[in-house]
Amino acid sequence: MRIALDAMGGDNAPGVTLEGAVETVNEFDDIDVILVGKTDVLEAGLGGKRYPEGRITIKHASEVVGMEETAAVALRKKKDSSIKVAVDLVKNGQADAVVSAGHSGVAMATSLLALRKCEGVDRPAIATMMPTINGSFLLVDAGANVDCAPANLLQFAYMGSAYCRIVQDIKEPRVALLSIGEEDTKGNELTKAVFHLLKKSCLNFVGNIEGKDIFGGSADVVVCDGFVGNTVLKVSEGLADAVIKILRDEITKSLSRKLGYMLLKPAFRHLKKRTDYDEYGGAPLLGINGISIISHGRSSPKAIKNALKVANQLSSRQIHKVISEEIRRCGG
Amino acid sequence: MRIALDAMGGDNAPGVTLEGAVETVNEFDDIDVILVGKTDVLEAGLGGKRYPEGRITIKHASEVVGMEETAAVALRKKKDSSIKVAVDLVKNGQADAVVSAGHSGVAMATSLLALRKCEGVDRPAIATMMPTINGSFLLVDAGANVDCAPANLLQFAYMGSAYCRIVQDIKEPRVALLSIGEEDTKGNELTKAVFHLLKKSCLNFVGNIEGKDIFGGSADVVVCDGFVGNTVLKVSEGLADAVIKILRDEITKSLSRKLGYMLLKPAFRHLKKRTDYDEYGGAPLLGINGISIISHGRSSPKAIKNALKVANQLSSRQIHKVISEEIRRCGG
Repeated sequence: MRIALDAMGGDNAPGVTLEGAVETVNEFDDIDVILVGKTDVLEAGLGGKRYPEGRITIKHASEVVGMEETAAVALRKKKDSSIKVAVDLVKNGQADAVVSAGHSGVAMATSLLALRKCEGVDRPAIATMMPTINGSFLLVDAGANVDCAPANLLQFAYMGSAYCRIVQDIKEPRVALLSIGEEDTKGNELTKAVFHLLKKSCLNFVGNIEGKDIFGGSADVVVCDGFVGNTVLKVSEGLADAVIKILRDEITKSLSRKLGYMLLKPAFRHLKKRTDYDEYGGAPLLGINGISIISHGRSSPKAIKNALKVANQLSSRQIHKVISEEIRRCGG
Repeated sequence: MRIALDAMGGDNAPGVTLEGAVETVNEFDDIDVILVGKTDVLEAGLGGKRYPEGRITIKHASEVVGMEETAAVALRKKKDSSIKVAVDLVKNGQADAVVSAGHSGVAMATSLLALRKCEGVDRPAIATMMPTINGSFLLVDAGANVDCAPANLLQFAYMGSAYCRIVQDIKEPRVALLSIGEEDTKGNELTKAVFHLLKKSCLNFVGNIEGKDIFGGSADVVVCDGFVGNTVLKVSEGLADAVIKILRDEITKSLSRKLGYMLLKPAFRHLKKRTDYDEYGGAPLLGINGISIISHGRSSPKAIKNALKVANQLSSRQIHKVISEEIRRCGG
């Protein structure tokens, strides 16, 4: 597969994106990378790096969207931005998927405008993997749609379920609705309406799930609106950072604690690996006619590599077509 | 002050509530406790415990609301429940405040029905303290109102700000609005409307705050609707539990790790203390004519003691009157 990488997108681009691309082609035989961005910058960055010849190519784009720019302005004015050119490669069939760690609002909007919605899908959604004590679950929507109707959440559930079936080989993914109580009478107007839609659907709906239980491993897909989903994602990120910061402060307070930390380092490393964003790499925008992966601005080379890997996987399994079929079949 | 305690409320009542009451009167000279529940059960439970005579009294209530009951049914049918009788003591001036670790929906509804809303307040809200890396912040609403209008959130902000000023002696509490981006254009329809109301208000509004930043200590009050607030609270609880569970599993994997854990125990203990629900004890229902503290069903004796302490503090400072005045003065 040929994956277009927005080489200029991300807090530490293009250093991190180039490194991620090189690691990817060295590790995976079936992924070629098209770096999109300023040719001179990218050529200079690649100089001296070792990778199989021809497996990384460059596609020129003269502009870059900054992380602080307004999405509306960037979309209107920057017609030759790296993210736009990268998405267009997919649109024109020159790439099989696109990955960007740049401005996520612009990456989403550009992907949606160029690749368009799948047939039957009203609102594409961001799907993010989150760790549990014994595995992971998929959170949909993680931030694409801040105000939703009940029918939108039903479609998020269909898309998330298809994703887990296709990508994670789970036969009947357990779909749960994020709410503030397990009973069907608990929740707000939106979730109460969605509960009944999910109950009638042909999904393996396991009922409401509370925030305290999402990390317990009892659901494969957790459905919510994009405002709540984005909040859940960011609160988790913030809390994990805060716990680590407090522990680090505590640990350096005495020599015996420092020694204790040395002994526990493998345990902490394992915890970090389990909760590490880098392992997941990026979040697909589900419900569009193509594969577009939105990565964190803070992505490391490893995160970029894993995002390219996910893009490759989704592309080879044609997730967008599966979603379209599923929604047509079940009338989502 | 005399605080009415729903002695039958909570997962481990009345053992835990009695223990909490005894610890409280032994520690604080200015708090007397009225235990509300079945006289014979409570008398038997108190037998053998040591505490200053007359500082704990019993008020009989023949019924108990179970944790699994529907709020609507319990409110209609159980007129002599411990929570109802306890709240009525406040209503009739026989107690200065009420604390319940029982069915939180019933405790809230009973308090609201009997004590009624403060003048000027449209929707009372639950205010919960949450820890940050260097202190704490107040989350309002933590679950009382799942569907809100912008004006409701403005009032939550006024109530939360008054609480922090009165209880925590913060002169101009920093009020932030929970959203999914810092800019005023980020958020859903509700938060965008609230942003402008807060901007025009006489509060010390510091703008939107993202979930990843709430634990950083840059806000004293974080405002959101009750669905989002309850989700934030429960996700934090669930994630903290999950991290501890994963670490514990990891730690027991080898002898050297066990030794490391022994050395780090003080650090973990400090972390636990910082993030421990027991330290906060309970969450006040702000915006009603009286003091009502809703505690966690899993409350320990220490949590009950701290809830009684908070009830005493709020009562002595007449928080409900301060809130009423504030909302009248600022036109919240």
